[in-house]
Amino acid sequence: MLIHSAAQLLTLAGGPQRGAGLGRLGILPGGALLLRGAEIADLGPTPELRQRYPHEESLDASGRVVLPGFIDPHTHAVWIGSRAAEFEMRLEGRSYLEILAAGGGIISTVSQTRQAPVEALKAEARPRLWEMLRHGSTTIEVKTGYGLDTPCELRLLQAILELDAEGPWELAPTFLGAHAIAPEFKDDPNGYTALVCAQMLPAVRDWWQANAPGRSLPFVDVFCETGAFSLAQSRRILETARTLGFPLKIHADEFDNLGGASLAAELGAVSADHLVKTSAADIEALAASGTAAVGLPCTPFGLAERAYTPARALLQAGGLLALATDLNPGTAWCGDMQFAIALGCRYMGLTPAQAIAAATINAAAAIGRQASLGSLEVGKQADVLILSVSDYRHLGYRFSQNLVETVIKKGRVLAL
Amino acid sequence: MLIHSAAQLLTLAGGPQRGAGLGRLGILPGGALLLRGAEIADLGPTPELRQRYPHEESLDASGRVVLPGFIDPHTHAVWIGSRAAEFEMRLEGRSYLEILAAGGGIISTVSQTRQAPVEALKAEARPRLWEMLRHGSTTIEVKTGYGLDTPCELRLLQAILELDAEGPWELAPTFLGAHAIAPEFKDDPNGYTALVCAQMLPAVRDWWQANAPGRSLPFVDVFCETGAFSLAQSRRILETARTLGFPLKIHADEFDNLGGASLAAELGAVSADHLVKTSAADIEALAASGTAAVGLPCTPFGLAERAYTPARALLQAGGLLALATDLNPGTAWCGDMQFAIALGCRYMGLTPAQAIAAATINAAAAIGRQASLGSLEVGKQADVLILSVSDYRHLGYRFSQNLVETVIKKGRVLAL
Repeated sequence: MLIHSAAQLLTLAGGPQRGAGLGRLGILPGGALLLRGAEIADLGPTPELRQRYPHEESLDASGRVVLPGFIDPHTHAVWIGSRAAEFEMRLEGRSYLEILAAGGGIISTVSQTRQAPVEALKAEARPRLWEMLRHGSTTIEVKTGYGLDTPCELRLLQAILELDAEGPWELAPTFLGAHAIAPEFKDDPNGYTALVCAQMLPAVRDWWQANAPGRSLPFVDVFCETGAFSLAQSRRILETARTLGFPLKIHADEFDNLGGASLAAELGAVSADHLVKTSAADIEALAASGTAAVGLPCTPFGLAERAYTPARALLQAGGLLALATDLNPGTAWCGDMQFAIALGCRYMGLTPAQAIAAATINAAAAIGRQASLGSLEVGKQADVLILSVSDYRHLGYRFSQNLVETVIKKGRVLAL
Repeated sequence: MLIHSAAQLLTLAGGPQRGAGLGRLGILPGGALLLRGAEIADLGPTPELRQRYPHEESLDASGRVVLPGFIDPHTHAVWIGSRAAEFEMRLEGRSYLEILAAGGGIISTVSQTRQAPVEALKAEARPRLWEMLRHGSTTIEVKTGYGLDTPCELRLLQAILELDAEGPWELAPTFLGAHAIAPEFKDDPNGYTALVCAQMLPAVRDWWQANAPGRSLPFVDVFCETGAFSLAQSRRILETARTLGFPLKIHADEFDNLGGASLAAELGAVSADHLVKTSAADIEALAASGTAAVGLPCTPFGLAERAYTPARALLQAGGLLALATDLNPGTAWCGDMQFAIALGCRYMGLTPAQAIAAATINAAAAIGRQASLGSLEVGKQADVLILSVSDYRHLGYRFSQNLVETVIKKGRVLAL
């Protein structure tokens, strides 16, 4: 298929973009893109490609922007239930303890999720994934973490794997048994940490090798935060995971600075995420490492917090910045990468071009898939969006509206 | 048609909601609603209505929220062009003067709009109106104001009237010749004010009586703000308009407090809008008047400003609060009332129930149409939304996603 005559074809070519280099869209005005099977086979000026492939089925993108599918590198898309009542209580000024007493908080999601079989987990997640795909996310990282015991965490992993196989979306699975201290261990966080290390991680590896043979291991992630896992506990979990061969991620500095970002850099984690209360030293450590810094602006927005990821400082230090939604039922029920871009422009000091690169090629790097995803280059997977607008800057400028008109995943135009 | 078995039927019955009374949704769990032609003919518990109307065509709303169509009482939906380049320049830190020099600012929209015939104005506005309707706005106030000379302002008014007649949306027209000082008068704001009073307002009245005979006059609005119209100029325009029989509106206190809100209360304006820098005295004056206070939270969001309409103070004083989007190409390209609700909850201290009432029955009051619109009551117009969720609190809780599944305008289910 030949997508031709794009007002702007954004290639994002040249690999992940560090520091001041962020925002190179590689714009081909009037560009065309040839898809063969699930891959990008050629691209260039429309007249040239028309001449080279005169008999190809064609898709007219005139007056439209063509760009790589968004990659959402941080979501909690599989859970049961809603916390709408808790949202209202918070607005009414009720305290965290009152909300907990009324059955709110993350543990309420854990209670409901634990009761659900795999089919129910998939059934609740599916409409969310469709919604994300409609908004242009063609690849989505999805974490476990609402089980907090081995059987339910494995069911969540199974649901993610089965949803990935089902498609048309593509999922990157992450094991987040260390999302919160399990209720059974609420007075013994070290005990739960020991359980994660001694029981869960080996069980996940065994389960994975039996159920996804040949496929590389999922990420292991930990919520390094006051009230969740201390720096020492986070280190213990991540080091154990690394020893077992898992690639690493971390939730760091969302509300407090415990040093998680520097730990991620030290351990060679693929990404460190949230990064709101990140110190100058952490920023230097991240920038000097191969760890991607993932800003999740929907979360401070969801909580009406004032502070966002200090993107400008990260870029100045030479860091690799990506954007994600953090879709979850507690703080940010939003799976729209276009909105993450709009927030990135307003509250993280990014330009539309920088935010788009952070949502595509750099987001691919944040899940270790930059070799096959995140840009329009020959040989890469044909994950392509066509927008209803003629200028990329409408992303960011407009908000709470879907500018994605056509979604192509692995070379196939989706009916959405 | 019988809409039945709603998880929650929100009637919003009982008229506009002042002060601490804001947020009465009038929930009928398991409710049903009978539509006859363009009107609501009956409502009540599903078993009763099924028995009363056994042969009626039925629409199953089980597991869903049913509520009145949103009313967006403040938009600038008719304009030509985009200011995406200006958005990027602002993010890059360019000054207001640099942006003006590069052809940005409101006058750039005026230049493009002035060149457009009525058909072109309608063609650019139409997709925006469809997008608003898909997000649940069944009635939309639309202002002129990108003409700033009599011929173009009349063309804008004609476009609004013709779009209203075209439907399926319903539009409430407003004349905003006093949106900015016309470029020809940039050093003579009093001269432009005199032109508005002596030429434009009489011309609008004559044109209206010739082109919309029998229909009540449109609102007259003025942008009372530093750099636009002073308090004295605003008073002169609004008093002239009142003398000519026009109902009044005002843009007040968006960036500076000039006293526009108190002026609106004094002159009996239907609404005063923006209200960010509003003083305690202005709030008292508004609350003691019949003037609705319209918060436009998409605008500070669009500009990444920190200050929003002080809704809690307005409610404490007993004011009538409504929400609107302010859809416009400069500060808020967003026509989604669900997003205005989400911002109202996060940045104006509203609960979901309060924000919903502000977006329905109170928004109807802000355009003087509370007798026929804004609630589900017998005899009112059948403008109805069915949401994809079972609890109204998902409005506000979730963001940047469309929860509207079905839109019914004047009794007709729309294909959107």
